[in-house]
Amino acid sequence: MKEYKFKPIGYVKTKAESLPRHWSVSDVEGEIVIKPEYQPGLRDIKAGDKIVVIFCFHKSPAFSPEKLIQKPPHLNETRGVFSTCSPHRPNPIGLSVLEVIDVRDNIIKVRRLDMYDGTPILDIKPYIEYKPEGE
Amino acid sequence: MKEYKFKPIGYVKTKAESLPRHWSVSDVEGEIVIKPEYQPGLRDIKAGDKIVVIFCFHKSPAFSPEKLIQKPPHLNETRGVFSTCSPHRPNPIGLSVLEVIDVRDNIIKVRRLDMYDGTPILDIKPYIEYKPEGE
Repeated sequence: MKEYKFKPIGYVKTKAESLPRHWSVSDVEGEIVIKPEYQPGLRDIKAGDKIVVIFCFHKSPAFSPEKLIQKPPHLNETRGVFSTCSPHRPNPIGLSVLEVIDVRDNIIKVRRLDMYDGTPILDIKPYIEYKPEGE
Repeated sequence: MKEYKFKPIGYVKTKAESLPRHWSVSDVEGEIVIKPEYQPGLRDIKAGDKIVVIFCFHKSPAFSPEKLIQKPPHLNETRGVFSTCSPHRPNPIGLSVLEVIDVRDNIIKVRRLDMYDGTPILDIKPYIEYKPEGE
């Protein structure tokens, strides 16, 4: 079966040792350190922006079928994995919406971090809010 | 350098031959067909939900450095690639926020599609809106 391969464009750097379960409840600060060859692509990211950071849950063990239904830590009931943000998922891809504090050279200083130090970053995109049709 | 490998959890199915440039300006309907082994993970997705679909821009050519700055089709100026939703990016990972019309067995019927027929799906997550702290 076809596989798709991705190389990190950078890594998370943070001194935080414990992290909130999700970016939406985090005020942790840290850095996204981008490989110098991709630095030109950061040109239009600036303080105050919200960015979507796509990363790899690199510490997650291989997925097993009993994880198709899970109990999220903040709920008292179970959910299908695709309705959770669990790091245990068929493809261990994570997504955080972070607030940009500053961009200097190849380093984006961010707030709302929920990723461990050393987390490999796969992509960065602008955050675009969902609006109902016609708005 | 470390690579991360992902296998599709499913594929897009649509009869649409031309697609809008972005989900935020799309009203195209289609289906996300999930591999039967992952069907239990769809349990809590229901009509009316918004879902984040992470996919592979499988038709994009290999990335080349001149694409670090690009002119998006709807703008008259250039942008750093990480401030665009271009399919030409260091890792060809795409993200769409889709509206769920219906879920039946292993098929999610969706609206707002901006992906071609056959696009490999890597992950589905709940859409969580960014809210300023304290809200």
